[in-house]
Amino acid sequence: MENLLSIKDLSVKGIEQILEDAQRILDGETKSIGQKTAALLFYEASTRTKMSFEMAAHRLGISLLGFSPETSSVQKGESLYDTVKTVEAIGADIVIIRHPEDAYYNQLQQNITIPIVNAGDGKGEHPTQCLLDLLTIYQEFGTFQNIKVVIAGDILHSRVAKSNAFALRKLGADVMFSAPSVWKDLSLPYDYVSMDEAVENCDVLMLLRVQNERHAGASSMTNEEYLAAYGLTTAREKAMKKNSILLHPAPINRGVEIESHLVECDRSRIFKQMNNGVAVRMAILNQLLQKGGHLHVVAN
Amino acid sequence: MENLLSIKDLSVKGIEQILEDAQRILDGETKSIGQKTAALLFYEASTRTKMSFEMAAHRLGISLLGFSPETSSVQKGESLYDTVKTVEAIGADIVIIRHPEDAYYNQLQQNITIPIVNAGDGKGEHPTQCLLDLLTIYQEFGTFQNIKVVIAGDILHSRVAKSNAFALRKLGADVMFSAPSVWKDLSLPYDYVSMDEAVENCDVLMLLRVQNERHAGASSMTNEEYLAAYGLTTAREKAMKKNSILLHPAPINRGVEIESHLVECDRSRIFKQMNNGVAVRMAILNQLLQKGGHLHVVAN
Amino acid sequence: MENLLSIKDLSVKGIEQILEDAQRILDGETKSIGQKTAALLFYEASTRTKMSFEMAAHRLGISLLGFSPETSSVQKGESLYDTVKTVEAIGADIVIIRHPEDAYYNQLQQNITIPIVNAGDGKGEHPTQCLLDLLTIYQEFGTFQNIKVVIAGDILHSRVAKSNAFALRKLGADVMFSAPSVWKDLSLPYDYVSMDEAVENCDVLMLLRVQNERHAGASSMTNEEYLAAYGLTTAREKAMKKNSILLHPAPINRGVEIESHLVECDRSRIFKQMNNGVAVRMAILNQLLQKGGHLHVVAN
Repeated sequence: MENLLSIKDLSVKGIEQILEDAQRILDGETKSIGQKTAALLFYEASTRTKMSFEMAAHRLGISLLGFSPETSSVQKGESLYDTVKTVEAIGADIVIIRHPEDAYYNQLQQNITIPIVNAGDGKGEHPTQCLLDLLTIYQEFGTFQNIKVVIAGDILHSRVAKSNAFALRKLGADVMFSAPSVWKDLSLPYDYVSMDEAVENCDVLMLLRVQNERHAGASSMTNEEYLAAYGLTTAREKAMKKNSILLHPAPINRGVEIESHLVECDRSRIFKQMNNGVAVRMAILNQLLQKGGHLHVVAN
Repeated sequence: MENLLSIKDLSVKGIEQILEDAQRILDGETKSIGQKTAALLFYEASTRTKMSFEMAAHRLGISLLGFSPETSSVQKGESLYDTVKTVEAIGADIVIIRHPEDAYYNQLQQNITIPIVNAGDGKGEHPTQCLLDLLTIYQEFGTFQNIKVVIAGDILHSRVAKSNAFALRKLGADVMFSAPSVWKDLSLPYDYVSMDEAVENCDVLMLLRVQNERHAGASSMTNEEYLAAYGLTTAREKAMKKNSILLHPAPINRGVEIESHLVECDRSRIFKQMNNGVAVRMAILNQLLQKGGHLHVVAN
Repeated sequence: MENLLSIKDLSVKGIEQILEDAQRILDGETKSIGQKTAALLFYEASTRTKMSFEMAAHRLGISLLGFSPETSSVQKGESLYDTVKTVEAIGADIVIIRHPEDAYYNQLQQNITIPIVNAGDGKGEHPTQCLLDLLTIYQEFGTFQNIKVVIAGDILHSRVAKSNAFALRKLGADVMFSAPSVWKDLSLPYDYVSMDEAVENCDVLMLLRVQNERHAGASSMTNEEYLAAYGLTTAREKAMKKNSILLHPAPINRGVEIESHLVECDRSRIFKQMNNGVAVRMAILNQLLQKGGHLHVVAN
């Protein structure tokens, strides 16, 4: 039985199979697994990712087990392991987890026998977000080879940045970062460019959210100062290449990382990303829940 | 594509079609839309309205997307518009919203293409509650013409009062208000009567809830004083006409706007209202989600 | 129409029928009631019991009405009775309730006509937990006659202890308690033994959770001291009889009532209990929702 924990576990073939399945779903192919149950364990707030998995489950005919830390035995001190073991014992066929702890899944892999899908681990990874970003880029350019991608914003705390940078480079894209000094992650092997350089050269500008909830007061800049220095202003959007596109994992801080009116500009694929997310998650759930199903992973 | 935002948007024919559909559902007609998804975005507490929409969805075979502001990106500052745009992008076919802001839907209408059903906006309107009240009154009297309705309590803060007064007068009923001075809304064109006058003359007594959560400490009266002056006491219930009925949108403050034992008295239709609510909401969802479906609205 | 409120209401035949139905479900018998709706009213935190009922409902084809006190009219002061009457009016076919008040159901029985399943009442009872414990014991020994059961821990505050002690003695088991002095319930007719005596003699060791949320600071012991004096240590586990088993209703305080590594030791049936819980709850829901269905109860 396989999990989807890190985008790094997937082979190129594994990524391609998910993207192809997702595209076929978007093109109208229906899938139904039936009589399966997925448990959604979200220990952090989520709108998009959670609803997207819910919609994917509905469309596949999968039942859901609800859970919220506020009204569960997490309040009585229950460990993540015991909660996951519980949903397995209760009969869930798959468990989808978002948790504030980096690589929380390390404590689960040995004894949990149902597939685990990582819906975000602390500042670690967010592989399903990565896969929907990949699909959105592929739909646009038909390839990843030499596509110039700039990931811009709070690189240091972003699981989206980490998953995407790794996967995109592996698939042949040219990946760069753009960030204020305090949010650079110098442990990662990517070059930094300024936002002005970024917008002029990139095919894909992937904005990140300023995660105020993760670093209260870390930045001494006002929203206006941040936007002017590091965000997508009207002037910068105008400087972008004709066919380049704009991505953002959302939720968006309008007026901080992006000027509000640009959220739905012509080159924005922000809401298309969300639409793609359902198809990608359907593809993943379907592959993991098929009899004998598994994802193609890199050789260890 | 149409919305249900304000009861004022519906033509008389539009109201009648919803009431007739709802009555046929109560009489046993089954409906199934199938393969549709509704998103329930409740930014304020609700038991009845939320569960009623859930039940309506179950009975129509509609899937639900869950959401609670406490565990969603609302915590990260996401705007209502971005959240609604998100559920649209994820594939919801309809969105049902309760929000503390009056006329919150004004910010949504331009760019949201799926139907919006208003499940209560601030102190604005509550059209689906209004429609279930209308159905309950119509079941009793077979007409609205010259039916004397007194809406009693906190008129000023009540969206239920506003929606009902407008619709009932439009349908031919004779509408009056009864309220303590501080809770009168003198901008609305309805006469006020005392509770003693009200109970003696009305066919329908529609009590409102004292909304302590909306005006902490606004009233200096004790519960007993409020009941004696403005509530339905045993003596007042006895003074009501033989066939007159009692409505309340609930939740009920027992011993404040009504003496506890009267909640289930013979003339109370309070729990029948809730039963009617499911049928009314099924009728609305069905009309809005049918191919080419729409509500009959007033000409602009 | 019948309820499941207290294990004391069930006749031996009633218990046996639930256990037999549950075992047939575990052996592969499928059941589907269809087109029914259950309302889950959980006024206290729960992971296992709530998810277990959800899974049971999914497997029976029953729809669920969601509810959480935090986002419902409980916030507006609505009484339990009015909330239950509401879910009945909305059309729920059965209501499953967990509530912090002992015997909360006494206020409901007179006027509520749909079946009520008690999912835990304050320090009162937890009959469905009891039934899944009974099934787990029966699976092991094929009988209850003369099976030595020690229930160990916070007897005074435990609804699980009360339900189990009563039912097990009624079914012929030999029931004893083990508890620190402050947590003994001397009103109940069971003998107390030390943990050292318990482990040497019992066939079933039923550990209870230290309910820190119910008696903050009541114990002046550290976790280590509690474990050494009253918990299951490695040494005590080694002293248990060859075929004796270990139960725990969970959530588990690892390192308090049990040493962490023993949670999944060979004699532990802790996760099997959870698995059995789904089948037991399916059996109960099925029996209560069948046309003319009812549980076999003791003669009054």
